[in-house]
Amino acid sequence: MKIEMGGMELVNGFTYAAVECGIRYENRLDYALIYSEAPCNAAGMFTTNKIFAAPVKLSRLRINNPVQAILINATNANACTGEEGYRNTEMLTADIAARLGLPAESVLMASTGVIGRQLPTDRMAAAHGRLVETLSRENGRVIPRAIMTTDTVEKYVCVSFPTSAGDRRIAGTAKGSGMIAPNMATLLAFLITDASVPKKDLDILFRQAVEKSLNAITIDGDMSTNDTALLLSPATGQMLVDPADIASFKKALETVLTNLAEKIIADGEGITKRVKVVVLGAVNDEDAKRIARSVSQSVLVKTALFGNDPNWGRIACAAGYSGAVVEESSLTVRYDDIDLLKNGVPIPFDTDKIKSIMARGAFTITVDIGLGKGEATMLTTDLSYDYVKINADYST
Amino acid sequence: MKIEMGGMELVNGFTYAAVECGIRYENRLDYALIYSEAPCNAAGMFTTNKIFAAPVKLSRLRINNPVQAILINATNANACTGEEGYRNTEMLTADIAARLGLPAESVLMASTGVIGRQLPTDRMAAAHGRLVETLSRENGRVIPRAIMTTDTVEKYVCVSFPTSAGDRRIAGTAKGSGMIAPNMATLLAFLITDASVPKKDLDILFRQAVEKSLNAITIDGDMSTNDTALLLSPATGQMLVDPADIASFKKALETVLTNLAEKIIADGEGITKRVKVVVLGAVNDEDAKRIARSVSQSVLVKTALFGNDPNWGRIACAAGYSGAVVEESSLTVRYDDIDLLKNGVPIPFDTDKIKSIMARGAFTITVDIGLGKGEATMLTTDLSYDYVKINADYST
Repeated sequence: MKIEMGGMELVNGFTYAAVECGIRYENRLDYALIYSEAPCNAAGMFTTNKIFAAPVKLSRLRINNPVQAILINATNANACTGEEGYRNTEMLTADIAARLGLPAESVLMASTGVIGRQLPTDRMAAAHGRLVETLSRENGRVIPRAIMTTDTVEKYVCVSFPTSAGDRRIAGTAKGSGMIAPNMATLLAFLITDASVPKKDLDILFRQAVEKSLNAITIDGDMSTNDTALLLSPATGQMLVDPADIASFKKALETVLTNLAEKIIADGEGITKRVKVVVLGAVNDEDAKRIARSVSQSVLVKTALFGNDPNWGRIACAAGYSGAVVEESSLTVRYDDIDLLKNGVPIPFDTDKIKSIMARGAFTITVDIGLGKGEATMLTTDLSYDYVKINADYST
Repeated sequence: MKIEMGGMELVNGFTYAAVECGIRYENRLDYALIYSEAPCNAAGMFTTNKIFAAPVKLSRLRINNPVQAILINATNANACTGEEGYRNTEMLTADIAARLGLPAESVLMASTGVIGRQLPTDRMAAAHGRLVETLSRENGRVIPRAIMTTDTVEKYVCVSFPTSAGDRRIAGTAKGSGMIAPNMATLLAFLITDASVPKKDLDILFRQAVEKSLNAITIDGDMSTNDTALLLSPATGQMLVDPADIASFKKALETVLTNLAEKIIADGEGITKRVKVVVLGAVNDEDAKRIARSVSQSVLVKTALFGNDPNWGRIACAAGYSGAVVEESSLTVRYDDIDLLKNGVPIPFDTDKIKSIMARGAFTITVDIGLGKGEATMLTTDLSYDYVKINADYST
């Protein structure tokens, strides 16, 4: 397995287009199309928020169809837009499908941006000609930019991996979660591969890999109305069936998703720290996840991280109210390899040494519950002045 | 019913003392005693955090005993202190009990402050003589100051209420929740009354009133290891049994607790807004509470409040991921009496008017789920630069 220099343009069988449509702002790429030459098996993970955007509804309904295109817009989430919002997704995908000579049901859609406003459908439909005409493999390079909102860097990765039928590739792009701008923390991720993977394997492997990557990062704990992650794999050609090939694909898929998750965290606006929270020894994995989430999302923990304050008390406290089984007498808290609390007993530590670990900007907090074998890992960030500034100063 | 000018010193049958013991800092009141002339029925509500302090363990075990004194210290939480920490609470309460001529089991204890450090028991025991000698009714005035950590104002209230046996009083004091200093968000509240209320009624009424007041406020969503609310009522004298008397007591108790909860919110460090989140129309009260809590604790909602940004999308989003039943098509969001979202449809609004409501610093956000009769109310605050500063700059 190898991480390539480049992104989606390196994968056979897909073309791309992105245009400045003026959906909310002028002079920015805001409308994009991903097209597959072959019908694909698609896997999708969507927000579990009960208030979900129209494109989430549409893509959920179509995720088990043969899929051949994804239509993506930034700057307008098409959320809280009711039946009209949903009809707009049907209309736009039907129009693009017709231009591509595809059934409407083979086009998915994803959106990010301000909520509560209808899409400017006339303007968007008027851009469809340009989208279809400019489809090219090279345009894979511009998709990462077209989907950005307040992200400061483009996020993409391509991995090649060996199979019994020769090397294959998976590439993907993502935009920031928890960056909240312009209106909401939306995570979008689009992955494509030239490996033909059976739908059933694709679904299972994608879900498992997303749980360990995109679903294991938190910046502000808020879950968007629009979160969408999609993976397309050709439904034609020689299918991967050999267990060794599937294992190779799985490893590459996890690498791509973990890489994108790390890039999202690293680009968290206003952050000064990237922290891996590792929970060990919980009664089960479910409990470990609860604890990891509780610690990662605690405002008190996050402000202490910002201040380089090795405040293990806040971590113990957040573990305690997570809802998981936790006992003081077996609780251990560690920063990198230094114990601050060991089996419930505070350990004297060199404050300067811990502060220097924290000041590095990337370190690991281990919370060992000491009761079982449950494990979970989550990436989190600190909470800074700038975070508050960015999120307070945005005006509806 | 009448709110009196004063606090605990207005209630018959109780005396108080507070001293500068130097538990963590010099020159501040940090050790206090509340003494009842008569054995009392006691009601208590404690943190549900699985990591709870030694004094919480002690007071939980003794809450159904006849109680005659409460020992309180600030600046050291006696949490994550293991068996030694618990033995210290036993020793200190036993010593004070002996000096007061009481059984040890009649003394409760509460603590707030830094966690993970043993109490300086020699110094504290050496102060017991002074505590007992200086007990006086007038010292009821200094208890609010003695329990403060980063609170900026003393919080106390006294309410008189009519009964068939003449007027009675309830008074109480509290210290801030979510203020997080020095190390943890601890809420302490101590209430006393000269009304003799049967233990069973006391337990039920206290629980109900705390749920609607102290348990319905949030500043940062973190739940302390030390949260403790106690209510003492003489177990002697003519007991309140008449339903009208109990109703009168109930109303006064709710008034005292609501008043203290509002004072805690108003003193939230770094806050610029006090916001009442009212949830209506949920499938049941439990769901309403989930939604109120989710909206009140959302970092995105709180930063938008700080920025005077009427960002109803973040509120709808937080309702959506609360775990409660929510449907976009019946969701309404209102600031004071102005609808921003009505049955899932965004309503055009006068931004300047909403911003002027928000700039007032105190207003109501109503979230009407439109599905049932479940209701809940929670008080919350914004999240400001100063909040981050206060919580980042504290050093362990």
